[in-house]
Amino acid sequence: MSQANIGVVGLAVMGSNLARNLASREGNTVAVFNRSRSKTDELVAAHPEAEFVPAFTYDEFAASLAKPRTAIIMVKAGAGTDAVIDALVDVFEPGDIIVDGGNALFTDTIRREKAVRATGINFVGAGISGGEEGALTGPSIMPGGSDESWVTLGPILRSIAAVAEGEPCVTHVGHDGAGHFVKMVHNGIEYADMQLIAEAYDLIRRGTGKSPAEIADVFAEWNRGELESYLIEITAEVLRQTDAATGQPLVDVIVDQAGAKGTGAWTVQTALNLGTPVSGIAEAVFARSLSSHPEQRSVAGALPGPVEALTVDDADAFIEDVRLALYASKIVAYSQGFDEIRAGAAEYDWSIDLGAIAKIWRGGCIIRAQFLNRISDAYAATPELAVLMTAPYFVEALGRAQGAWRRIVSTAAGAGIPAPAFASSLAYYDGLRADRLPAALIQGQRDFFGAHTYKRIDREGTFHTLWSGDRTEVEAEDTH
Amino acid sequence: MSQANIGVVGLAVMGSNLARNLASREGNTVAVFNRSRSKTDELVAAHPEAEFVPAFTYDEFAASLAKPRTAIIMVKAGAGTDAVIDALVDVFEPGDIIVDGGNALFTDTIRREKAVRATGINFVGAGISGGEEGALTGPSIMPGGSDESWVTLGPILRSIAAVAEGEPCVTHVGHDGAGHFVKMVHNGIEYADMQLIAEAYDLIRRGTGKSPAEIADVFAEWNRGELESYLIEITAEVLRQTDAATGQPLVDVIVDQAGAKGTGAWTVQTALNLGTPVSGIAEAVFARSLSSHPEQRSVAGALPGPVEALTVDDADAFIEDVRLALYASKIVAYSQGFDEIRAGAAEYDWSIDLGAIAKIWRGGCIIRAQFLNRISDAYAATPELAVLMTAPYFVEALGRAQGAWRRIVSTAAGAGIPAPAFASSLAYYDGLRADRLPAALIQGQRDFFGAHTYKRIDREGTFHTLWSGDRTEVEAEDTH
Repeated sequence: MSQANIGVVGLAVMGSNLARNLASREGNTVAVFNRSRSKTDELVAAHPEAEFVPAFTYDEFAASLAKPRTAIIMVKAGAGTDAVIDALVDVFEPGDIIVDGGNALFTDTIRREKAVRATGINFVGAGISGGEEGALTGPSIMPGGSDESWVTLGPILRSIAAVAEGEPCVTHVGHDGAGHFVKMVHNGIEYADMQLIAEAYDLIRRGTGKSPAEIADVFAEWNRGELESYLIEITAEVLRQTDAATGQPLVDVIVDQAGAKGTGAWTVQTALNLGTPVSGIAEAVFARSLSSHPEQRSVAGALPGPVEALTVDDADAFIEDVRLALYASKIVAYSQGFDEIRAGAAEYDWSIDLGAIAKIWRGGCIIRAQFLNRISDAYAATPELAVLMTAPYFVEALGRAQGAWRRIVSTAAGAGIPAPAFASSLAYYDGLRADRLPAALIQGQRDFFGAHTYKRIDREGTFHTLWSGDRTEVEAEDTH
Repeated sequence: MSQANIGVVGLAVMGSNLARNLASREGNTVAVFNRSRSKTDELVAAHPEAEFVPAFTYDEFAASLAKPRTAIIMVKAGAGTDAVIDALVDVFEPGDIIVDGGNALFTDTIRREKAVRATGINFVGAGISGGEEGALTGPSIMPGGSDESWVTLGPILRSIAAVAEGEPCVTHVGHDGAGHFVKMVHNGIEYADMQLIAEAYDLIRRGTGKSPAEIADVFAEWNRGELESYLIEITAEVLRQTDAATGQPLVDVIVDQAGAKGTGAWTVQTALNLGTPVSGIAEAVFARSLSSHPEQRSVAGALPGPVEALTVDDADAFIEDVRLALYASKIVAYSQGFDEIRAGAAEYDWSIDLGAIAKIWRGGCIIRAQFLNRISDAYAATPELAVLMTAPYFVEALGRAQGAWRRIVSTAAGAGIPAPAFASSLAYYDGLRADRLPAALIQGQRDFFGAHTYKRIDREGTFHTLWSGDRTEVEAEDTH
């Protein structure tokens, strides 16, 4: 039996496809192992062309791997992952490498990396994006873990990753949980991107009366411009699809309740811990949960809407406004997402090259788009950019789009068409650029009812007004 | 030494004030204990009128309490709370009652209740709202814990709570962590309420050019109508305040960066776990974090704004529009908050009387308002109300307000004035009442790139289109 240079544990669709991808690349021999033997047998039988080394126990699996042993775990995130890690730690040796390729929460990855490192074995949490298809043909891969593990793992992951403009869509993101953190934010941005596209579709449909197939043409056209992206492309495909059973557009046959798997919520929850406003991503996550409460929506239908329906005189001009509103809102969503990565890197002491992250998202993953080149350009020019959307390219784009963006948010509000992510992105934009915010009033209120104190614009220190006394101001200890 | 019927551990300002409040009520004798002796001595010396029984060790503290011993812990939430609980468990006996009156996260309270219950001692997590002043004169109290503990604790808490329309602002919210859960959501609603008021102020100021003192008059006027509330009242007070040092309005001297203590973020994080859209609360929390990033705001000042400034022809009409927008958005914020309590009760198996919660918020706490009577009325009429704002009273109010609300959100978007909570609340309102949402498109996208499947409106089952095959539809296992 020949020795394998890489192993895969967990041979459900994602794991099988990743194993086939690995086996298809020059130089790889792939050990494969699954808890139940049948999946292993099926995979090996179905792909005689692949250099698989099947193993049926963890001991066999370990014996089949050349040193340093390197194995990718592809099981459902959760307790199962811990069980597989424990089993591998038992049969591996110091210097070997265990990779978790599932969608783990990055704090779990930090915990696991610390525990496994104590045994001398390397543990790498790697975000893998692109779904089943990407796993087979080339995903975008976001590995964390140690520099030592990257020496062995780098060439293997580069061999299977998607390629964008000649570059493999994988980079060593940072230590311990950095890879899963970045994958989480990728998914959060994906939620926002999808919600923005959904709002654009809804506005065009309600505003112009165009059919889904006609709107498919609009998206196909958009996909030839600055919005070019996988999500815009598949939106056209979905909108063009006719349901065979009814002859109706498929999108009208699908129940309008959007599901979610949790990574969007994690992105928002983590941003709340970091103090990073990712309001557009939050609106996207909440829009899905709102849609999934039919018991509430059925009673809320009685709530009064605007008297006048939306009338659009110039459909082409309206559609161009929607396109610009979508582009501007998308810039905000990515700006917020990269802001969260920057904040996470500072909090967890990761050295993350933000431009490199934009580059590895150009292929393999759901949010792949030309647009990401503009982001890597921005960070190449100014690595310490405090707000992505203040890079010159985006300032120009936002300046060009803002009039349309404002018209669309106004129109939606007036016409009773929900556009939570469009509206939230614009409010964030106007909030960030405001000279003064009414947050000063909030600080005054907090000082009034809770003696939370405030700062002054004209001198250092922390102050409190004696609201229930003579209303003079006193210097106070900072109790924030 | 006489025996006390209630004890307080932790004599910082909140604890001292609560102890003084307890001692001031007929029938209470209050044991007081603090880790450092000096605080205990100071409290007792400063208040010879109060029936305090000072204790200087946990043993003395336990000995000074009549059975069942009942003690309220008033220490900073966190690890310190666990240390005090452990010490009390050592000296208390089965049947005794330990109350945590701090701002604990409800999941910590659930954990602690379970651990303490195993010893036979009762553990009660009680949210106490109203700040230092409320602790002294009458807070709103939200206790969880067992029915057994409520027999002893109820009369004591009723004796010190605020009174609204003759009723004490305390009720047994539900078991284990229910009290701290409800207190958390109270704070989340408070964030939204404050942000909405701040946006209203900002719009009036920028739209009409009125001075803070003039806007104070507007709020004072509003406080005589349906917006009557403590927060509107103190807003007028804060806006009327002149800074003695500069002669400027105080609100213009305060640094416009709003602080936060975490309960707002918890409210949103918990809602994300529950799948409850609290978008208005999220926008309020994020508006504070946005304000607190001066390093980002300073570079974002260069982002282009609208060419034309806001011009308001009829200031009075504009102010009335803002008032109605504020009222409608406030209804949404409370509807979202009560929705979260309903969802939390279902998830954690608490029996919570939502109308009773509205009632105990009428006094003592920061969000106290006449308005809460409308909420208790709504739940009295329909205890199983799926969406608070669909109660007839609110439907009427929203119908009356929505035209103004839409104008204000449109105006803010057009004029470049950030109104994230106004805009988000309106989008939520329009989303919940929509016949069809573009969530159907999102389900189509998810099925396209991830085979996540979808439901059909016309028959049971779970379906998948073979997007990369012949694009026929197949029945699928539900993989949601």
